[in-house]
Amino acid sequence: MSIYRVGVIGLGTVGSGVVRLLRERREAIRSTTGADLELSVVADIDQGRAQALGLSEGLFVNDAEQVLARQDLDLVVELIGGLEPARFIVRQALATGRSVVTANKHLLAESYPELLAAAREGGADLYFEAAVAGGIPILKSMREGLAANDIQAVVGIVNGTCNYILTEMSKRGEQFDNVLAEAQRAGYAEESPELDVGGHDSAHKLAVLATLAFQRLYSLRDIYVEGIERVTPADIGYAAEMGYVIKLLAIGRRFDAGVELRVHPTLLRTYHPLAAVDGVFNAVVVETDTAGRLMFYGRGAGQDPTASAVVADIIDAATRRGKARSTVADLRAGEVCSMEQLTARYFIRFNAADRYRVLGTIATELGQHRVSIQQVIQMEKRPDGVVPVVMFTHPALEADVQRAIKLIDANDFILEPTALIRVSADDE
Amino acid sequence: MSIYRVGVIGLGTVGSGVVRLLRERREAIRSTTGADLELSVVADIDQGRAQALGLSEGLFVNDAEQVLARQDLDLVVELIGGLEPARFIVRQALATGRSVVTANKHLLAESYPELLAAAREGGADLYFEAAVAGGIPILKSMREGLAANDIQAVVGIVNGTCNYILTEMSKRGEQFDNVLAEAQRAGYAEESPELDVGGHDSAHKLAVLATLAFQRLYSLRDIYVEGIERVTPADIGYAAEMGYVIKLLAIGRRFDAGVELRVHPTLLRTYHPLAAVDGVFNAVVVETDTAGRLMFYGRGAGQDPTASAVVADIIDAATRRGKARSTVADLRAGEVCSMEQLTARYFIRFNAADRYRVLGTIATELGQHRVSIQQVIQMEKRPDGVVPVVMFTHPALEADVQRAIKLIDANDFILEPTALIRVSADDE
Repeated sequence: MSIYRVGVIGLGTVGSGVVRLLRERREAIRSTTGADLELSVVADIDQGRAQALGLSEGLFVNDAEQVLARQDLDLVVELIGGLEPARFIVRQALATGRSVVTANKHLLAESYPELLAAAREGGADLYFEAAVAGGIPILKSMREGLAANDIQAVVGIVNGTCNYILTEMSKRGEQFDNVLAEAQRAGYAEESPELDVGGHDSAHKLAVLATLAFQRLYSLRDIYVEGIERVTPADIGYAAEMGYVIKLLAIGRRFDAGVELRVHPTLLRTYHPLAAVDGVFNAVVVETDTAGRLMFYGRGAGQDPTASAVVADIIDAATRRGKARSTVADLRAGEVCSMEQLTARYFIRFNAADRYRVLGTIATELGQHRVSIQQVIQMEKRPDGVVPVVMFTHPALEADVQRAIKLIDANDFILEPTALIRVSADDE
Repeated sequence: MSIYRVGVIGLGTVGSGVVRLLRERREAIRSTTGADLELSVVADIDQGRAQALGLSEGLFVNDAEQVLARQDLDLVVELIGGLEPARFIVRQALATGRSVVTANKHLLAESYPELLAAAREGGADLYFEAAVAGGIPILKSMREGLAANDIQAVVGIVNGTCNYILTEMSKRGEQFDNVLAEAQRAGYAEESPELDVGGHDSAHKLAVLATLAFQRLYSLRDIYVEGIERVTPADIGYAAEMGYVIKLLAIGRRFDAGVELRVHPTLLRTYHPLAAVDGVFNAVVVETDTAGRLMFYGRGAGQDPTASAVVADIIDAATRRGKARSTVADLRAGEVCSMEQLTARYFIRFNAADRYRVLGTIATELGQHRVSIQQVIQMEKRPDGVVPVVMFTHPALEADVQRAIKLIDANDFILEPTALIRVSADDE
């Protein structure tokens, strides 16, 4: 097989890992896969990064445009992240016939159709395994390994920062703020953690997963998003007593009426395959009509796992050369179910004053909204005088639950806003 | 893409599932993958099976030779199982330029080099995702998704029958023989279950996994095999008290001196990702140097999951056409560590008479063989007078442990043969 020429744009953590793999493994990759990958050019605004990698002067340019200008490249790796200039670079490379590998979930969640159009225009291919769940080959598995299946659901833990924080809160009974601060000091969480802890990063990945799984276009606007900021160690403890753990899940599920797309903290039975996924690990459950339920588990972030996924994509591109497996044939927007239509069981914690008739009033209001209580635990009074009333409902309509809680929260015996966490169906 | 012509040999459970998928999904597969798969001919000795599937007369032949004689086929699916005539059919198809998809792990474990040589001779490709772990795309993930990695270990639960039996024994405290009989009645175990419960089926799959993972040829002769027949509910109970479950694992692990290949019941910490894999499910952990540790979980058998893997392979062959990803570049036999060299912790149950100095004699003998006891639990006397002495050792050499047990078992206070189960290292 002839030499396959690769340009890498962006020498951050992942880019540096990719450059190192390409240099150290060229011969091993050639002998096992037949792909002879040449690192032809590397671009970054900071030449110091290239020097740190021991790259020769001739390989380095400090301007992405110079990579795009190289007519001899077969493929461009975009690892600068963010929307611009990443979008321009990817579109330009594709439209001029260079295949692209990217890890940029934000860009994909925003601009997938536009990028795919550029790829068709240029006769090039777009690969993005590293954009979702780092080192886990989940996109390839869905697209190729499960190609004979109808996928009915994808449910994943796809943000390692959130999963690390929830795991630590659960193990040590520590508050969210404290664990987040620790995670930031340890480098597991960004200085500006909103994208992670607010659930938005998971939503980017869900948009990509859902588009591949359900073969229609789904974007960020289609996804209900709730982060983990308001999860308390007390709720984790109540959940544990009832045989549940709390995880931030990205959930995509197909129904006749459309697809449910949501990211929020979720109570999972301890025996659910995702319940044991702890720390910075990621995992994605895929439910299919033919192969049944599968789970893919591994490291969702970090230099080496992400670089592993990027290089696997490069090898795929090199060995397929113009025979890339198509991804989504029909990019019309898919139908989406509104959150109000969701039917689920709910974990609800009311924070009430220690008075008579509190439970009666709550139960009556819920009942009037067709929300039936499966189990209620009136907890001991906290030192600050608040009595947490924790309950699990039977399956109920989200709209009904939200309306009932709003009315209940208007009572003067409710001392703090009510906490609501959705419970995963036992079989999902 | 032009039509891709497929012949299916063998209309058993999996073959019927493949035929159904190919017929029902032709259009869906064409639109999402570009592969236009035509079921051109189907062979079985029993025409009734073809009729049950509603196949037209013209599609059916009752002789595999007639499939091989068809010059217009692009690919042959071999689903008759066993060694002959499967070997002849696969070799013949490959040597004459037709790619082959098979689910035949026995054939692969015995004849992989010979089949690969035939494929090279004919310029055809050999696919066998369905041979290991049914619907889980584990081989594709190792070969392609993890192509940039050095794989250090593959550890799997790859026989659903054994896992079902162990799970039921664990849940209900039932004896092996009884659960096996139930599983046979329920269709989860064969009439002749030795291949499954004796660990041999797992060994077939381990030979395939290890060959792909470690890029050298490993065969059945290289694998130490022990089945689950002697696992008792009592041992499962003792293990549970200490925080372990017992699973039949297929373990392949690379060391400098060679590869460890073994199939045997193993104690796993309850928090190990494989510990939660229950019932007929399969899972394979892959440890890599770059992507870290991954796990792939799903249905390891059954008509639909296996057919899903077969059809995914057909699609792969159709979309790659002569650009198949090579599998193993170097088919020299790999170095294998002998079982005697294994270092592990051991769970040992001695079945002793209720006498003084039993424990002292056992401990002394173990000590003289450099086997150090980590924990010992002298259990209550059983109704039959036997006192089970259960212990966990520190890491010790298999050869030492075996020699010590042989000597201990020669004492007249040992009333039944000693049970020995290896303990997984906490980090494996």
